[in-house]
Amino acid sequence: MPVPIETPAVLVDIEIAKRNIRTFQTYADAHGIRVRPHIKTHKLPQMAELQLDAGAVGITCQKVTEAEAMVDGSERITDVLITYNILGKPKLNRLEGLNNRIALAVVADNETVIDGLSSHFSAKDKPLRVFVECNTGADRCGVPSPAEAARLAKRINDAEGVDFAGLMTYPPIAGEAKVQAFMSEAKRLIEADGIAVPSITSGGTPSMMHAAGAPVATEYRPGTYIYNDRSLVSRGVATWDDCALTVLATVVSVPSEHRAIIDAGSKVLTADLLGLTGYGHVLGRDDIRIDQLSEEHGRLVSDGPIRLAVGEQLRIVPNHACVVTNMVDAVHIVEGDEPKAVWPIVARGHVL
Amino acid sequence: MPVPIETPAVLVDIEIAKRNIRTFQTYADAHGIRVRPHIKTHKLPQMAELQLDAGAVGITCQKVTEAEAMVDGSERITDVLITYNILGKPKLNRLEGLNNRIALAVVADNETVIDGLSSHFSAKDKPLRVFVECNTGADRCGVPSPAEAARLAKRINDAEGVDFAGLMTYPPIAGEAKVQAFMSEAKRLIEADGIAVPSITSGGTPSMMHAAGAPVATEYRPGTYIYNDRSLVSRGVATWDDCALTVLATVVSVPSEHRAIIDAGSKVLTADLLGLTGYGHVLGRDDIRIDQLSEEHGRLVSDGPIRLAVGEQLRIVPNHACVVTNMVDAVHIVEGDEPKAVWPIVARGHVL
Repeated sequence: MPVPIETPAVLVDIEIAKRNIRTFQTYADAHGIRVRPHIKTHKLPQMAELQLDAGAVGITCQKVTEAEAMVDGSERITDVLITYNILGKPKLNRLEGLNNRIALAVVADNETVIDGLSSHFSAKDKPLRVFVECNTGADRCGVPSPAEAARLAKRINDAEGVDFAGLMTYPPIAGEAKVQAFMSEAKRLIEADGIAVPSITSGGTPSMMHAAGAPVATEYRPGTYIYNDRSLVSRGVATWDDCALTVLATVVSVPSEHRAIIDAGSKVLTADLLGLTGYGHVLGRDDIRIDQLSEEHGRLVSDGPIRLAVGEQLRIVPNHACVVTNMVDAVHIVEGDEPKAVWPIVARGHVL
Repeated sequence: MPVPIETPAVLVDIEIAKRNIRTFQTYADAHGIRVRPHIKTHKLPQMAELQLDAGAVGITCQKVTEAEAMVDGSERITDVLITYNILGKPKLNRLEGLNNRIALAVVADNETVIDGLSSHFSAKDKPLRVFVECNTGADRCGVPSPAEAARLAKRINDAEGVDFAGLMTYPPIAGEAKVQAFMSEAKRLIEADGIAVPSITSGGTPSMMHAAGAPVATEYRPGTYIYNDRSLVSRGVATWDDCALTVLATVVSVPSEHRAIIDAGSKVLTADLLGLTGYGHVLGRDDIRIDQLSEEHGRLVSDGPIRLAVGEQLRIVPNHACVVTNMVDAVHIVEGDEPKAVWPIVARGHVL
């Protein structure tokens, strides 16, 4: 029986999502790690509430407007960390509005950002909490050394309008030893300056079940774990049965024995490869590869006969769940093949 | 001077877009080719009106809801070709609504789609025009041979509720000879059946200035030409000065001498590579590569010193303009560095 939902559509099996939430929360509770999920994966206040229900201490957002959408969407979201260097008056004004409503923190990895935050918040009643972002090997943002982390911690501590909140990193995969080494040394240097380190926060779904391997970290920020995706299955940290998010698509053309075309292209599945070959996994059809996407078409190929008919529905696990939820205005909440609700993705597209 | 627009943002230089429209229209007029631009690149009724002003005969859309948004957005959009196999009652109902308002056509490459269209429209007052989609080498949708095109043309011609409108293809790059050969033979076979071939429509920006190389085609559907992008510059069919669409980004971190991070990631630039290395071109900085994107961060690297400061703005030509306009709710219309207007992208995200 086809799922009675117009395609292409993004489906989230709520029971699988709840189970995924529980699995990591149980691990974190057992190891005394606070959980602060990154909402970039779902962008939904309702999902954040499920995470809070399970025991999360708050949420992580990447952009200021994303945090606004989440806080506007649920009265229960009262503790947000924005893991981003924030610059410029318009964003600082928004940040101030949020800081007056909830427990808020941001990160900084350079003096320009710290000085901008301090300058804005020095005249306000409530200081802004600021973490120092540390590069433990992912080579994106972050100070390069514990000494530099300590220098910025002192700068925050000495500045008006901002309070030093701790250390933050997004580590490389299997980077627990690096996190432990960097953060222990940074903490030692900062405390030697007479400054307390209230929190050390790390993240990343691929290594989350090894989070306890960096015991210096007090908090963990997994994102994708709530839905999982082909990337995580390929890493062996999830199975297809753990994938809560699927793309429902319809076969619109079967032009040859080894090729079929579906109505989901890069505007739903996205071109994210995450190191994989192909653009998703067709559930139940290990023999099929999604080898090419245009905006509205996905091309499926097989070595043997493709055995698909025009009009047939398929469910596809995308390479990367987080980016897929940014492509559509709403997700269809399902249990198995049964539609239960449609939830608008209120924090979609909030890039400011 | 920084552009007074909050970043990340998608900017379109309207004068460059107008010039790009004129360049192809002039070529097409000189060769007697009708122009039917694909709006997937801009998704804006205002841009479609500029294309109609220049001489376009109508527009091309990929999905039914996209066509609805465009027709709702401009009374002057009265002729639309949807180059898609359309299936299922909800979409057929929408199609019927559109068909009652404007001159509409769709494509089909298989009997299931033709029979579905015929079954729906046979009881209606106004038949739906249907092109046969032909595979001239791009190996996506399309019938594989002129004989199969002729067979489907006859099926459409014989069916109730649908009128045969002609032949459609999206050819491979530099595929003029293939288009000419396939379409000439298909036309000959169809006309031998006593059926007229009212229109033969081809497309694609990369080869558009060679469209006259397939004189059997009477119409051309370029999309990206209005904005251009890094992919087209790399193919030598446009220069950076022809790129109307840029992403405005701010440097948020300069963690090392050879690395900087901007506030635009895959949620704006997208992960589309189109065969290129890296995720865009920083205007004025040939020495910089955008070597990695996460959702909200772009990583810039250089062999020499990167010479960027936190807070600095950059303008980036993305690999693929069409997918970028799907990532934001509005584009900023500019002339040079001067903001002129903000246009909501009304057909964004319309995947049904």
